[in-house]
Amino acid sequence: MAGARLSLTGTNLSRPFTSPTPSAYLRPTIISGVAQNLSYWDSIHSDIDSHLKKAIPIREPISVFEPMHHLTFAAPKTTASALCVAACELVGGNHEDAIVAASAIHLMHAAIYTHDHLMLTNSLQSDSETEPKISHKFGPNVELLTGDGILPFGFELLAGSMDPAGDNSDDILKVIIEITRAVGSQGMVTGQDSDGEFDQLIGQTRRCLHGCGAACGAILGGGSHDEIEKLRRYGSIAGKIQGLLSEMDRNEGGKGQLAEKWRALALKELEYFDSKRIEQISTLVRA
Amino acid sequence: MAGARLSLTGTNLSRPFTSPTPSAYLRPTIISGVAQNLSYWDSIHSDIDSHLKKAIPIREPISVFEPMHHLTFAAPKTTASALCVAACELVGGNHEDAIVAASAIHLMHAAIYTHDHLMLTNSLQSDSETEPKISHKFGPNVELLTGDGILPFGFELLAGSMDPAGDNSDDILKVIIEITRAVGSQGMVTGQDSDGEFDQLIGQTRRCLHGCGAACGAILGGGSHDEIEKLRRYGSIAGKIQGLLSEMDRNEGGKGQLAEKWRALALKELEYFDSKRIEQISTLVRA
Repeated sequence: MAGARLSLTGTNLSRPFTSPTPSAYLRPTIISGVAQNLSYWDSIHSDIDSHLKKAIPIREPISVFEPMHHLTFAAPKTTASALCVAACELVGGNHEDAIVAASAIHLMHAAIYTHDHLMLTNSLQSDSETEPKISHKFGPNVELLTGDGILPFGFELLAGSMDPAGDNSDDILKVIIEITRAVGSQGMVTGQDSDGEFDQLIGQTRRCLHGCGAACGAILGGGSHDEIEKLRRYGSIAGKIQGLLSEMDRNEGGKGQLAEKWRALALKELEYFDSKRIEQISTLVRA
Repeated sequence: MAGARLSLTGTNLSRPFTSPTPSAYLRPTIISGVAQNLSYWDSIHSDIDSHLKKAIPIREPISVFEPMHHLTFAAPKTTASALCVAACELVGGNHEDAIVAASAIHLMHAAIYTHDHLMLTNSLQSDSETEPKISHKFGPNVELLTGDGILPFGFELLAGSMDPAGDNSDDILKVIIEITRAVGSQGMVTGQDSDGEFDQLIGQTRRCLHGCGAACGAILGGGSHDEIEKLRRYGSIAGKIQGLLSEMDRNEGGKGQLAEKWRALALKELEYFDSKRIEQISTLVRA
C-alpha cells in the first residue's frame, strides 16, 4: 500500500489532450446580462453554470480544485438538473429556489459521468491493450479520486443552503433523500436490465435522475404530494425518451413509435396543471 | 459507449478468492446478548454492524445487494465511526442517537476503502503487468459502481433518520454537512502533503473522518459549540496518531516520540470534560 502514492502534479499533462475540452460541451458562450435572449432551457443551464463556477473556483491547492472544476464542466449538460428549476416554477416556486438543488444534481451527474468514462477506458485498455480511445486531461486515479470528491460536494452545497432560521431544512432533507436514492441503491437497481446485467452508469441513472430532478423542483416550489408525483413521472418518462433517442441511430427498430407513445404518457402527467404554465416544461418531450 | 456493458453475473466468481473474507476483518464473532462482555469499542462496533446488516440485507436483485453488502463489511472497522458514538455519550447524549451517523461514517469509509483498493490494483497492473497482488471478489467495474452506490446510501440513511416531527432535522443537516466536508473537498485538500502530492484516499481522509466522527457525535448528543470543537480536535489527533502508528514498522524514525506528543495534545482537549466521563473515549489514544 505504501508504494501506491498518487501524483497529481505532472500526470498526463504533457500528453496531447484529445478529449473534448469543457467549452466544446458548453452551449454557445453565455454572457451575463443577455440571458433573456437565450431559450428557456439555455437560460436555466446558464444560471446553474454561474452557481457552480462560484461554488468551485479554481483556487489553491490547484491540484485539487483544477480537476474538480474541469470534470464538473467537462460533463455534458443534463436536462435532469434543468427540469428541477422548471418543475419548481411550474408549481409556483421561484426560479432561484431550485438553483442549488439543480447544481447538486449536475454534480451527481458529473461524478457518474467521470467514473463512467473511467470504466470505459479500463475496459478498452484490457480489451485491446492499446491506448484508450477516450483520453483524459488527468490520470485515471485523479479522476477516480476527484469523482469521489464531487459527489459529496453536491450534498455539501445542498445542506449548506439551509437558511439561517432553518425554515427550509425539512425540504432540503427531502431533496437530499430524493438525490441519494436516485444515485444510490435505487439507481443501481433500476439500471439492471432483464438479463440481470448492468448498462453503463450514465445510462442507468438517467431515468432516475430525471424523475428525481423534477420531484426535487416540485418539493422546493412547495408543490402538493400529487404535483410532486406527477412531475416525478413526467421527468422519468422524459429521461427514458432521451435515452431512447440517443440510441436511435444505432438501432432504429420500432423506437420512433415507442418514443411517440412515451411522449403521450409524459404529456398526460402535465394535464393536471394550468395549460398556460406547462408551455415551457413540456418542450422537453415535444422537442 | 454502447459496447461497454458491464456484466455482474459471472465476473471473477470462478477465480480463486484470495483476498481476506469479511469475517477475517471482523472482530471476534459477536453473539447478540453477550455484547456486555465485549470491550466498550467492540460493543459500539457490534451495534454499528447490526444496524448496517438490517439496512443492507442481501436481497433481490442479488447482483446489486451482494456486492454492496460484501464491500460494506469487507472494509476494516474504523474508529472514526466508533468515536461518533463515544463523543455523543460524553456530552450526555444516548448511545442510540449516534448509531445511524456512525453507520453512515462507516459507509463513507467503506466506499473510500473500496475505491482505494481499486486504484492500487490498477497501479500494480500497470506497473508490473502481472496479476494484481490484491484480488477481488467482484470485478473492478462492479467495485467502482458499488462504491459509487455505497457513498450516497450513507447520506440516504442519515436523511431518513429524521424523526416524524422533524425535531432533529437541523442536527441531521449539520451532520450531513460535517460528513460531506470530510469526504469531499476538505478531505482532498487535507490529504495533500507538503510536496503537493496525494497519499492514498484511505490515508488522506483518515484524519478528517476521525475529527468529523467525533464532531457529529457531539452534535447529536446536544453538545455546546466548545464541546463540539474540542471533540473534533481530539478526533483529528486520534486519527493522526493512528496513521502514524500504522506506518511505524516501515519507518521508525522519531515517530514514537511524535505519537507521545500528539497523545498529550489529544488528552488536553478532554481536560474540559468531567474526568469520570472521559474514561472510555480516552482509551482510543492511550491504547
